[in-house]
Amino acid sequence: MEISRENQPPHQVVIIGGGFGGLHAAKALAKAPVNVTLIDKRNFHLFQPLLYQVATGNLSPADISSPLRSVLSKSQNTQVLLGSVNDIDPQGQKVILENEAIPYDTLIVATGAKHSYFGKDDWEEFAPGLKTVEDAIAMRSRIFTAFEAAERETDAEKRRAWLTFVIVGGGPTGVELAGAIAELAYQTLKADFRNIDTSETRILLLEGLDRILPPFAPELSQTAEKSLKELGVLVQTKTLVTNIENDIVTIKQGDSVREIAAKTILWAAGVKASPMGKVLAESTGVELDRAGRVIVESDLSIKGHGNIFVIGDLANFSHQDGKPLPGVAPVAKQEGEYVANLIAEKLQGNTLSPFNYKNHGSLAIIGQKLAVVDLGFMKLKGFFAWIFWLFVHAYFLIEFDNKLKVIIQWVWNYITHNRSARLITVYESPTKLEDNPSYYSSTSSRQPVKV
Amino acid sequence: MEISRENQPPHQVVIIGGGFGGLHAAKALAKAPVNVTLIDKRNFHLFQPLLYQVATGNLSPADISSPLRSVLSKSQNTQVLLGSVNDIDPQGQKVILENEAIPYDTLIVATGAKHSYFGKDDWEEFAPGLKTVEDAIAMRSRIFTAFEAAERETDAEKRRAWLTFVIVGGGPTGVELAGAIAELAYQTLKADFRNIDTSETRILLLEGLDRILPPFAPELSQTAEKSLKELGVLVQTKTLVTNIENDIVTIKQGDSVREIAAKTILWAAGVKASPMGKVLAESTGVELDRAGRVIVESDLSIKGHGNIFVIGDLANFSHQDGKPLPGVAPVAKQEGEYVANLIAEKLQGNTLSPFNYKNHGSLAIIGQKLAVVDLGFMKLKGFFAWIFWLFVHAYFLIEFDNKLKVIIQWVWNYITHNRSARLITVYESPTKLEDNPSYYSSTSSRQPVKV
Repeated sequence: MEISRENQPPHQVVIIGGGFGGLHAAKALAKAPVNVTLIDKRNFHLFQPLLYQVATGNLSPADISSPLRSVLSKSQNTQVLLGSVNDIDPQGQKVILENEAIPYDTLIVATGAKHSYFGKDDWEEFAPGLKTVEDAIAMRSRIFTAFEAAERETDAEKRRAWLTFVIVGGGPTGVELAGAIAELAYQTLKADFRNIDTSETRILLLEGLDRILPPFAPELSQTAEKSLKELGVLVQTKTLVTNIENDIVTIKQGDSVREIAAKTILWAAGVKASPMGKVLAESTGVELDRAGRVIVESDLSIKGHGNIFVIGDLANFSHQDGKPLPGVAPVAKQEGEYVANLIAEKLQGNTLSPFNYKNHGSLAIIGQKLAVVDLGFMKLKGFFAWIFWLFVHAYFLIEFDNKLKVIIQWVWNYITHNRSARLITVYESPTKLEDNPSYYSSTSSRQPVKV
Repeated sequence: MEISRENQPPHQVVIIGGGFGGLHAAKALAKAPVNVTLIDKRNFHLFQPLLYQVATGNLSPADISSPLRSVLSKSQNTQVLLGSVNDIDPQGQKVILENEAIPYDTLIVATGAKHSYFGKDDWEEFAPGLKTVEDAIAMRSRIFTAFEAAERETDAEKRRAWLTFVIVGGGPTGVELAGAIAELAYQTLKADFRNIDTSETRILLLEGLDRILPPFAPELSQTAEKSLKELGVLVQTKTLVTNIENDIVTIKQGDSVREIAAKTILWAAGVKASPMGKVLAESTGVELDRAGRVIVESDLSIKGHGNIFVIGDLANFSHQDGKPLPGVAPVAKQEGEYVANLIAEKLQGNTLSPFNYKNHGSLAIIGQKLAVVDLGFMKLKGFFAWIFWLFVHAYFLIEFDNKLKVIIQWVWNYITHNRSARLITVYESPTKLEDNPSYYSSTSSRQPVKV
């Protein structure tokens, strides 16, 4: 399995991050004459577009995760490394981990984004976001604990606060969460409680702009809003959140300010780049945008460092129409494949024309059998959009892994209104290899590489 | 949905614990003229016999869990309460929770067992056991982290310790864990690593007695041992563990004492009763056995308290052949159904003959397509035993929930040698409602009932 190093060592590609960008880059390099090392803090790829289904008890984390090693097990030139990157040394061409340094000829940084509270970081405690498996499990516990607590609460006002769910942000994640919680409260859990009537649940979806799903065509935003209202969701557009404290959301609608008592406040309002952006800025001098994303060149490399590429949610690519490309899976995928292709071509002395994103459309699901799809040339809504959404997601899930059972699980749930993954459990914060209790007990004999 | 209380309040049955015993009691009382309150710390029933499949990345926690509320949603006389019981007041006939007291006419205590280190509680840190979902997730993380750490380890001796798995205890759980880890190391993960050869993994199964699976017939123990050896497991009988420290297991075989360096040590050696046994002893004066189990009368009630029943792993029922019944699901199930039946009969002025356990046999799975089944009148081994095992487990899983996808997942995994739930994540310690971050923010207005 060792690549021959007899004459010239093969070109070393290091990829940081096993999300859509990094994983697609690695897969596209499988046949190239290079050695690939993919570094990730986690041992699995996460299908983030379905994370809201974990948060609402419909799927298990493993249903939307694929072990990186099994996805890449057939790529003989590729090594997966579980570890955290602390720094990058562009002069020495090394990636610095906690106890070793990995040399690279070409580096691809694809560490993604995390949710952002627009500078109000103290809101996070009260209004958790949804980016990791742990986030989803924590959100799931909050949602189901709220119903349990309401069942035991005798004070009417407090019970009302337990049965009030506020979702901040009317983008796809907010819309999908609101729809799923509405189905839970008004259908799935209806018969399960004895002291409360779950149909009294209030679900508020708050959006600052004048319509939900702003990236979609206005008519689809309208359809989505109508459908959510029919599901029982209280959609509030032109609504700014001015404060979040323990169990209280303060909102501003025009000139009127009011407080909403809610025990469950969920954040779906914004993202910022992962900290690796800062690391790159400090080590290479590259410019970041206001969201912390790395401004990339037209070939996705960074200025002055033609062998460092940034892709996916961490990249700000504005060469197409002046606006940065959105932080969605298809962008990351196409960028990963482009960079892989570019590396292979360069090794043969060729060049490639600049990266060009092909937008195949936007999708959002509103509830059972309801979705909106904007393909640009065609707009779908309702049941057919939902079927389309189902097939697209099933197709992309199956790409990395055989998630046959996820599709069966979906169909089953949609028929039975079931929520089988309704477990109230709590995950710790994201885990690194070093967090394993027995890991530190080994004082590794491996010497840190001098850099 | 309220039971009429016009003339006489209905008989109140409180059940503590939603395991096999408690849940079967509740279900059997669904048609009885009583009100039932089932109290559990968790919002789901756990199918413990398959927990080892979660620990080895084969199933997700939700696959073997059923939300208590959905299992009991059709039992209109039954209320589920998420909470922890702190005390029992047999004089006032009340169960004391953290902020309220629940009155009962009849009490069924079914809080089960947890693993025991025979007084060596400091071993737990190094050799975790397998009783809860959190245990399984922690074990899963340890197992998969060990391979990851071995992949990054350059020191041969340390790498060997990472690739050494010691399982203490040769009962069904130990046998099942050893078989599943052997399949992981020698089949599933074979192609996934680049620096290590997972076939060098050593898996030791340690048993103090002279054969594994002591509850089975000797010939089945022999078959199981032979099958495990063929899978690559090093079975060591007549082997006592005298010490467990960080990464070192000390064993005694006859007069020889030796140390095994192993980064992953798993405990499958013994259980003791849950702390509710002590609570009962202190409040009612009932006698406990050495394992902390409650000595019960021939009708499963406790001495001097005919309206308090103890069932399942917490009970020591020795009226059948002088030996306590084993702590397995079928015993708990039959005990739960007996007590439910007894309560219903008593309300009509009837009595029942003493409880009598019908042993339908023992089952253990050794590996893919291999199991041993001891039905008393018939012994099965090999592939047919495995098929039998699969059907029995599928049948019992389906009893509470429609776990169609679990069966599909199994068949799929057994065909593909896949381990889809290979996520390295960490759960916190078992969660109670009160652990929810927003729970304490509500100073409940409900007054504690004076007792």
